Amino acid sequence: MAQLETSDFAQAVIDRMADCQDARFQEVMTALVQHLHAFAKQVDLQPDEWMNAIQFLTAVGQKCDERRQEFILLSDTLGLSMLVVALDQARGAKALAGKPGDKPTEATVQGPFFWPGAPQVELGADIAEGQHGDPTLYHGKVTDTFGKPIANCVMDVWSGDHDGLYDMQKGDSMALRAQLRTDQDGNYRFWSIRPTFYPVPVDGPVGQMLDRMGRHPNRPGHMHMMLQAPGHERLVTHIFVKDSPYIESDAVFGVRNSLVIDFPKHAPGKAPDGRTMSKPYYTAHYDFRLVPSA
Amino acid sequence: MAQLETSDFAQAVIDRMADCQDARFQEVMTALVQHLHAFAKQVDLQPDEWMNAIQFLTAVGQKCDERRQEFILLSDTLGLSMLVVALDQARGAKALAGKPGDKPTEATVQGPFFWPGAPQVELGADIAEGQHGDPTLYHGKVTDTFGKPIANCVMDVWSGDHDGLYDMQKGDSMALRAQLRTDQDGNYRFWSIRPTFYPVPVDGPVGQMLDRMGRHPNRPGHMHMMLQAPGHERLVTHIFVKDSPYIESDAVFGVRNSLVIDFPKHAPGKAPDGRTMSKPYYTAHYDFRLVPSA
Repeated sequence: MAQLETSDFAQAVIDRMADCQDARFQEVMTALVQHLHAFAKQVDLQPDEWMNAIQFLTAVGQKCDERRQEFILLSDTLGLSMLVVALDQARGAKALAGKPGDKPTEATVQGPFFWPGAPQVELGADIAEGQHGDPTLYHGKVTDTFGKPIANCVMDVWSGDHDGLYDMQKGDSMALRAQLRTDQDGNYRFWSIRPTFYPVPVDGPVGQMLDRMGRHPNRPGHMHMMLQAPGHERLVTHIFVKDSPYIESDAVFGVRNSLVIDFPKHAPGKAPDGRTMSKPYYTAHYDFRLVPSA
Repeated sequence: MAQLETSDFAQAVIDRMADCQDARFQEVMTALVQHLHAFAKQVDLQPDEWMNAIQFLTAVGQKCDERRQEFILLSDTLGLSMLVVALDQARGAKALAGKPGDKPTEATVQGPFFWPGAPQVELGADIAEGQHGDPTLYHGKVTDTFGKPIANCVMDVWSGDHDGLYDMQKGDSMALRAQLRTDQDGNYRFWSIRPTFYPVPVDGPVGQMLDRMGRHPNRPGHMHMMLQAPGHERLVTHIFVKDSPYIESDAVFGVRNSLVIDFPKHAPGKAPDGRTMSKPYYTAHYDFRLVPSA
């Protein structure tokens, strides 16, 4: 009969999906309902706590607009986004298991600041012209996991400014982002600034949540990279500045050891790409390895 | 170091709450993060599924306004609201365990259609005047769990109309809702209609979810009741029409056997409260037992 005891509600919801035509959706929703109910029972969730959660989630949804995605920020700060990235890369690695070749470059979160259609620039361009910040030469090589260079690999690169703000947080003009392509030997190089740490947006409900959790909202300095080449899996990752504050406590859990590098400082003079620098500059060297498509 | 493996993300998030000043919040968030991550790992959540979830939750938040609470509807249809109600009542029952007295009346979900400030009416009033529907006399007694009558108990009662629509879904005028008080012996009586089944609102993202789950959106016919009296726990419940369609498959899992009653039909004539009925009518008899406050 219709009587339901406390312990039966999850199963009642799951049974109600008997006519679901989408097996994967049914599988995902079944696990979601099980965990959601197990959570509520484990903490003996109180009605006022439940109502606070309803109001919080509503506020998160209503904070979203074309430029702001507070639910992604929530997912990021609860470590879920990074878990999804890691699960995805683990699936890719599993497909390669037992095959020759090196480990691919580790992925990390895309974040909310990717802006499609960035200016296409030549190798060696300075994408930080007119911006404050420490000039830095980014360079390296893109290969597949067998070490074969990938020519014409499309690289989107983007970062915040000297104060930790991204262009889209300030207005409608793109800055400190570009798209470039590797040369015939898979090499890339461009100039930008050395990125600084910055807080995720804290003027919404997620900021209040972080505060109540006793957490800081900061991410260590990093340069975003998205690499795409025909015949290879797309890679979304960062390179992190080793001595940046918060490198040990990224607010979105995106740091991977293999992505943390030194940014050595150099005296004024001729840089490795031939450019003559009148003031001190930094270099960031990183080689990427992409997974061949299955 | 900062390196995180797939299996460590949940713990990393939890560890980040070391400075949380609110022990209960920390406990709830710890369990939430554990279950959220366990869910994602169990189903090996894919990036496009994660993005669909982000977009779904955003749409749920943006569907909410002063009259529409899509997150409560989501919670209701996933059985979570009813679980929270049941957990709350189980806590109350636990406090009473081993003490004399009968079981209190079972609670169920409040739902989104409570509208504070309904007209105060005399016992025996017809709150369905001018409305289509089968006239029904609701009557019974309110006592505590020891059988002691509760005089002056404030009862809010509300239901949908003959077509299953609530007043607030149709406009700004209250209808089919009222507030009354029990008499010196704890008795109550009022006339309204026999409620019909109706669908929860399906023109939003939750409606799409139900459809994809292969579920109908309907609730069986029920009269909402909220009972409040000094010295007693507030009770929010329904009485359900036994032969209503969907009594076995309430879309929000709110049915409890003890709340399902017969609505016997009577020939025209003198009703139990003395009113003379010129057409057939129904009666609904239910006695309520409230929990004395701790």
